[in-house]
Amino acid sequence: MPRFINVAAAQLGPIQRADSRRDVVERLLAHLHQAHAMGCQLVVFPELALTTFFPRWYLEDPAELDAFYEREMPGAETRVLFETAARLGVGFYLGYAELALEQGAARRYNTSILVGQDGAIIGKYRKVHLPGHAEHEPWRDFQHLEKRYFEPGPGFDVWRAYGGVIGMALCNDRRWSETYRVMGLQGAEMILLGYNTPVHNPPAPEHDDLSMFHNHLVMQAGAYQNGTWVVGVAKGGKEEGCEMIGGTCIIAPSGEIVAACSTKGDELAIARCDLDLCHSYKTTTFNFDRHRRPDAYGLITSRRGAIEPEHLAA
Amino acid sequence: MPRFINVAAAQLGPIQRADSRRDVVERLLAHLHQAHAMGCQLVVFPELALTTFFPRWYLEDPAELDAFYEREMPGAETRVLFETAARLGVGFYLGYAELALEQGAARRYNTSILVGQDGAIIGKYRKVHLPGHAEHEPWRDFQHLEKRYFEPGPGFDVWRAYGGVIGMALCNDRRWSETYRVMGLQGAEMILLGYNTPVHNPPAPEHDDLSMFHNHLVMQAGAYQNGTWVVGVAKGGKEEGCEMIGGTCIIAPSGEIVAACSTKGDELAIARCDLDLCHSYKTTTFNFDRHRRPDAYGLITSRRGAIEPEHLAA
Repeated sequence: MPRFINVAAAQLGPIQRADSRRDVVERLLAHLHQAHAMGCQLVVFPELALTTFFPRWYLEDPAELDAFYEREMPGAETRVLFETAARLGVGFYLGYAELALEQGAARRYNTSILVGQDGAIIGKYRKVHLPGHAEHEPWRDFQHLEKRYFEPGPGFDVWRAYGGVIGMALCNDRRWSETYRVMGLQGAEMILLGYNTPVHNPPAPEHDDLSMFHNHLVMQAGAYQNGTWVVGVAKGGKEEGCEMIGGTCIIAPSGEIVAACSTKGDELAIARCDLDLCHSYKTTTFNFDRHRRPDAYGLITSRRGAIEPEHLAA
Repeated sequence: MPRFINVAAAQLGPIQRADSRRDVVERLLAHLHQAHAMGCQLVVFPELALTTFFPRWYLEDPAELDAFYEREMPGAETRVLFETAARLGVGFYLGYAELALEQGAARRYNTSILVGQDGAIIGKYRKVHLPGHAEHEPWRDFQHLEKRYFEPGPGFDVWRAYGGVIGMALCNDRRWSETYRVMGLQGAEMILLGYNTPVHNPPAPEHDDLSMFHNHLVMQAGAYQNGTWVVGVAKGGKEEGCEMIGGTCIIAPSGEIVAACSTKGDELAIARCDLDLCHSYKTTTFNFDRHRRPDAYGLITSRRGAIEPEHLAA
């Protein structure tokens, strides 16, 4: 019995620093309406989809920094997204910077939420793998201060929603096989994943020309190795002088890309995703219970960094 | 400072059941000689490289089964490989079925060894992820009885050899991201991996036309995500009526295929592999100590099979 979700991967072009929340929300609404017109039930927006990618700057003024975060969701400028979702019956995934008050203290997270077709929040995810650095590194063409501006989230959850089991991740999470596996072990059938990825990686410019290849490689492998759909959605194009890769795509449990954006701007890639296509992977090659060997995986949780076997003969 | 190993991925065409060990060893020797003539230091042979892929048959006669296993390594028919290796200064990786006597009991493993340029065994690996099934399943076009004919090995090691850190795996291991990660956490710079993969997978024929795509996808992702070379070597072609995929290749730490076989027969793919190319991956994007989050990976070792979140609202 097929279980279809019609999904729109809603790529955004650049968001400049001068663009207001209202400007951006208008673009998100346009995506919601177009996706609805094309029969979609779920729209996937990028990471930090309400602002420019502000970790590219070292910001010393707390007020200047705080302006990039949402204190409530929905808030004054974003409420219309939830109302429109409910009215159209089109839910969404949205990435944004979250400023939470927890026991009186301000905590900052790189967050995504999953919203149902009724406009209600189903689940929240806080990014686990924060890339970049925590201190100002002026030698870079641009900063990548996620380790400064966010705290890491605790882990990867999945939710029963849209007739299946849905997981969330953000950007750099997609490069880590553990991301997909932890959700695969909870039965994930579709992983939603927004990202902002510059073409240029200042610490390793020798990889720049492979950035799109790596982007697709990790998501395709994660999909296949866990028998799950993956919806990877970029903010692309030239944002505040920084070129971002785009490469939005929808990947089947086979690992095949079945829909993709071909621009770096606001663009929808749409697929009719049958969650039951996961079944033949999850019950054969990737029948975890039958074939996995956790007793041989101890280092994955007991060791963080790599340690070479110095005790062995050279 | 580059650290080069010149590697030959020594694909084998089919080995029929009637072929003697001597016939096969002659083919391996031809590969060793040709690789030496082309300046290689290391030759990588496939999984179960001394016989036909016998788990495709349900064998009830113990003597008939035992004939496929090696009781000692080197043995009478294989000693010439080690002698030739030492004479030429060309080491090798070799997969074979191992019958070990441990505390008086016969134990069977799907094994590979790494042999140095002096012809001495450096390390032994016993396959962790045994695919297939343990009982006769007559409905299949052919059996895949690895779970019957072998016991699983305990885990993944690496060895300081050939000027770097070398790991080993076998066939189905390559589909599991944990394989690469456990070796990556030990600093692996090159993972040697022999395989026998039929085009047709009886439990999931709907994936047959993707078998080569999946073969490359998992090895390329494993290489990139751990900043390691991967040398994947097939036994290919039509063996006892069963078509095998071939697809032998050498993959750089970038995930790019840098050398590949284009036939299904005995063929060498050769690359000059700089182990120092691992460095820019292991110290930036995949600096494990800086970016991994083992506290979020608990399920990978605490849970074998997938468990859906049934406790959550539908």
